[in-house]
Amino acid sequence: MNEKTISSQTIYEGKVITLKVDQVELPNGKTASREIVTHPGAVAVMAITDDNRLVVVRQFRKPLGRTIVEIPAGKLEPGEEPVVCAHRELEEETGYTTRTMQHVASCYTSPGFADEIIHLYRTDGLIAGEAKPDEDEFVELMHITVEEAQQLIESGEICDAKTIMAVYAWKLESRT
Amino acid sequence: MNEKTISSQTIYEGKVITLKVDQVELPNGKTASREIVTHPGAVAVMAITDDNRLVVVRQFRKPLGRTIVEIPAGKLEPGEEPVVCAHRELEEETGYTTRTMQHVASCYTSPGFADEIIHLYRTDGLIAGEAKPDEDEFVELMHITVEEAQQLIESGEICDAKTIMAVYAWKLESRT
Repeated sequence: MNEKTISSQTIYEGKVITLKVDQVELPNGKTASREIVTHPGAVAVMAITDDNRLVVVRQFRKPLGRTIVEIPAGKLEPGEEPVVCAHRELEEETGYTTRTMQHVASCYTSPGFADEIIHLYRTDGLIAGEAKPDEDEFVELMHITVEEAQQLIESGEICDAKTIMAVYAWKLESRT
Repeated sequence: MNEKTISSQTIYEGKVITLKVDQVELPNGKTASREIVTHPGAVAVMAITDDNRLVVVRQFRKPLGRTIVEIPAGKLEPGEEPVVCAHRELEEETGYTTRTMQHVASCYTSPGFADEIIHLYRTDGLIAGEAKPDEDEFVELMHITVEEAQQLIESGEICDAKTIMAVYAWKLESRT
């Protein structure tokens, strides 16, 4: 079933992503081209407050041209452990620190054209502090109930895979 | 909170994706660059058999360099309605036809760098038929229980956002 790489051409190396186009040999001996985006990987944090609210941030996303509501998330620095990144991104975007981070799942966002992986963590026992966003990052902090999360999915303000996945995981744990 | 586009440069136009780099003005007046992948959008289908199994396909994904297990999915053709695409992709990859498709959720896979949206549908009442994969597509059909789906998430064979989201949605509906 494997596709054998015949050649690989790097088209663009950016700050965040790299684009390459590979020529591959298919299982039937034919050839095809594959457009591949490489990405450093990311973490996302499902942080639950003591009064059972999910910590989310509202931010503008240029690829979508609009503002959406997401769980805190961010890219891995080179060599950074995902769990360390989870603590760092949670504090940068929301100010919250926490002692424990539980791994929920790791997932590829777009396996057809990208190698981006997101490691989803869950935490509670949050300690409030001051947010420290990156200089090109503007986020608004919100705390939502499970019903509000469902409404935001229905209204389309929550509309990204990692956040919908986190809301579903939260609903599943709320029922056990 | 918005970012105003100052300039936009198309770096690459491929078969599936286009890469552009935009210069933007941030809310604080500074400028930043944004690497943006545009994608035609896609559908994914959570198809449940009469004996309560999820229809999945095993396929090689070049960006990951390995074979993974996913729900049937595929890109929208130009101008194609997502629900029409859902029927088409389900039949192409699995041979199944069905009369109804229920929209579950639509989500952006990577809002930080891509505009790809996946429309997730759910169906049952499946009618078996012959698969018609694209000429560069090689997939192996499987039917899994909810427990097997959970095991495949834990073993990492199910490892993409749309499929994990579908398994969580399936577990949520199984409990209601």
